[in-house]
Amino acid sequence: MYLDHAAATPMDPKVLVAMQPYFTDDFYNPSAPYAPAIVVRRAYEAAKDSLGHAIGAKGEEIVMTAGATESVNLAFNSIGGHVVTGNVEHHAVLEAAKLFEHTFVEADPRGMVTADSVKAAITPETRLVSIALANNELGTIQPIRDIAEVVRKEREARLGRGDHTPIYLHSDASQGVGQLDVNVARLGVDLLTLNAAKVYGPKQVGLLWSASHVELKPQVRGGGQERGIRSGTENVAGAVGFAKAMELASEHRRYESDRLSKLRDSLELKLTNAFPDAVLSGHRKHRLAGHLHISFPNLDAERVLFALESRNVLVATGSACAANKGTRSHVLTAIGLAPEVADGSLRMTLGHLSNDENIAKVAEIIIEEVTREYERVRAR
Amino acid sequence: MYLDHAAATPMDPKVLVAMQPYFTDDFYNPSAPYAPAIVVRRAYEAAKDSLGHAIGAKGEEIVMTAGATESVNLAFNSIGGHVVTGNVEHHAVLEAAKLFEHTFVEADPRGMVTADSVKAAITPETRLVSIALANNELGTIQPIRDIAEVVRKEREARLGRGDHTPIYLHSDASQGVGQLDVNVARLGVDLLTLNAAKVYGPKQVGLLWSASHVELKPQVRGGGQERGIRSGTENVAGAVGFAKAMELASEHRRYESDRLSKLRDSLELKLTNAFPDAVLSGHRKHRLAGHLHISFPNLDAERVLFALESRNVLVATGSACAANKGTRSHVLTAIGLAPEVADGSLRMTLGHLSNDENIAKVAEIIIEEVTREYERVRAR
Repeated sequence: MYLDHAAATPMDPKVLVAMQPYFTDDFYNPSAPYAPAIVVRRAYEAAKDSLGHAIGAKGEEIVMTAGATESVNLAFNSIGGHVVTGNVEHHAVLEAAKLFEHTFVEADPRGMVTADSVKAAITPETRLVSIALANNELGTIQPIRDIAEVVRKEREARLGRGDHTPIYLHSDASQGVGQLDVNVARLGVDLLTLNAAKVYGPKQVGLLWSASHVELKPQVRGGGQERGIRSGTENVAGAVGFAKAMELASEHRRYESDRLSKLRDSLELKLTNAFPDAVLSGHRKHRLAGHLHISFPNLDAERVLFALESRNVLVATGSACAANKGTRSHVLTAIGLAPEVADGSLRMTLGHLSNDENIAKVAEIIIEEVTREYERVRAR
Repeated sequence: MYLDHAAATPMDPKVLVAMQPYFTDDFYNPSAPYAPAIVVRRAYEAAKDSLGHAIGAKGEEIVMTAGATESVNLAFNSIGGHVVTGNVEHHAVLEAAKLFEHTFVEADPRGMVTADSVKAAITPETRLVSIALANNELGTIQPIRDIAEVVRKEREARLGRGDHTPIYLHSDASQGVGQLDVNVARLGVDLLTLNAAKVYGPKQVGLLWSASHVELKPQVRGGGQERGIRSGTENVAGAVGFAKAMELASEHRRYESDRLSKLRDSLELKLTNAFPDAVLSGHRKHRLAGHLHISFPNLDAERVLFALESRNVLVATGSACAANKGTRSHVLTAIGLAPEVADGSLRMTLGHLSNDENIAKVAEIIIEEVTREYERVRAR
């Protein structure tokens, strides 16, 4: 009973099947001149084209990376200037932003970074606005289209006064990908980060898409692969697997999104009925279908997590990166959750491994274990 | 009949078997707190310890990367200052060096960068000396131990005069790894780059080892993985596969090295007997066992390559990266090979896919095709 799909997803067996030939038979260096290597190069380029297709862009506008963190760093280090981002962003974005002059826009109590608050944070020196498509802890979906409109107007205003300082919008869509539309034109972004590992693809595979008017700066120099932006022998198996994962995600997106939100809602209802004092976080309406963030005031979430684990229910207390460090989630602090509420928070993220049967069972087990914990706390 | 093992190697089936569980069953995020994720974290750490063991170091001193190019860039960007490297180095090293004040030491006609020439290039501002363990085009093995001695003496001389400017030796051992000793203490290096893809492991997996006295600088910021030097969810399958590949390489190194040098020598003898004017490049004695670099003066190597390809013999004309760009190899220019000799060069690199039978066949086919090409050229 795995409810931590936001931290990691198992590779889809079809993805592994697609990758397999490139591990062993078609292992050639895509830069080699002979025909079998050219076949491999074409497979690589076809995978990039397919990834481009999935986001409504061209394969040649994509730089393959070793994951979302590298993509985010590449975006920030390429553009720099004053950067505007949210105080609920992933550590990759927050840490990349700290290398530059930056403003961390405060999210509202639902974890949403509004277009107005982004607008207020933009200065004449702002070159990059970076807002995730959806928050990884709360599942709150950000109003990217509205933010894109703010950025577009700022760009026009600058041009109107003869100021050619560029301003771009980057979005890390790692968390939204199997559930939301990630068409770059419809989102209105200039740069987009995706991560294969969050969408039943291989780990350590990601991409940064950038519009043709955006100039990226090489971060890894060498043989000149990926238009010279990111040298190193290409990850053919990784790109092919990522493309397959995105293809499957696009194919099943509406169905899966619907299925997960029903499962999530049933779990949410059972838990809030059993514990009327429980606090739900994240936007009620604009929220990823598989996300459920619930806090049990005055409980120690880690104790609950281990009690659930002993019954084969795997959940998270916060994002995986922060969880390992024993510090309170910066997201929960940012949305103003009181410490005694925040410390009793579980993040449950549903996905391929969730179904009616195991979610019903999960609800029962959580109710039993949380009840037991409350009894223990009250007995003290 | 694949003779381009220096460009890419097929993954050993045992490596793929070792990786497989981490794609699907044990897919958990190694930073998650529950037991199945901790099992994955331990497997990752065990893989790093095993990689450390293979080079006589500790797992915790290793930063996992997406390949040798990233490792080299991490080493250079961490240390900087004036850097000294060879003019026959891989593009990753040459391009990384160009971001800093640099001296490209001239290799001798055998492709060797001598300790004396490195010594002469070191200035009081030199912080990094970077020399590959073996040259990827010629196979020439560099005198790393002697160069380490030069670096050690420079360090002592600086300390003797109260100068605390550090100086480190980095070696990219990607090409040497299955055939040479890569024990960091015996080599005397402060930093070492390895690449899984060159040793029958997965592509896009590499490492940078650095001694505890070397301070690396974060290049990719985020969740704080790899001691904060390189953030991003860990490539568990990749590390496990790399560790398995290194284990197999260490186990079979002596035998394989012996086997390949015999095969290579037999091929070399047949070709030089058939074409007495052919030019062998690379050091006659200090050369990787599987490397054979041979030039047929006045022939067009690309034509020969495609003729051989049509008979299922795959060879390279230069390093794979450069080959794709239609420019003459910088290595052959560096060692002073005349253009009419350089342009007729084939690089053949033997490995796991080579055996008595196919190498004997390869010799026959090369002799036939090169003879045919010479006849064509003479007829004009």
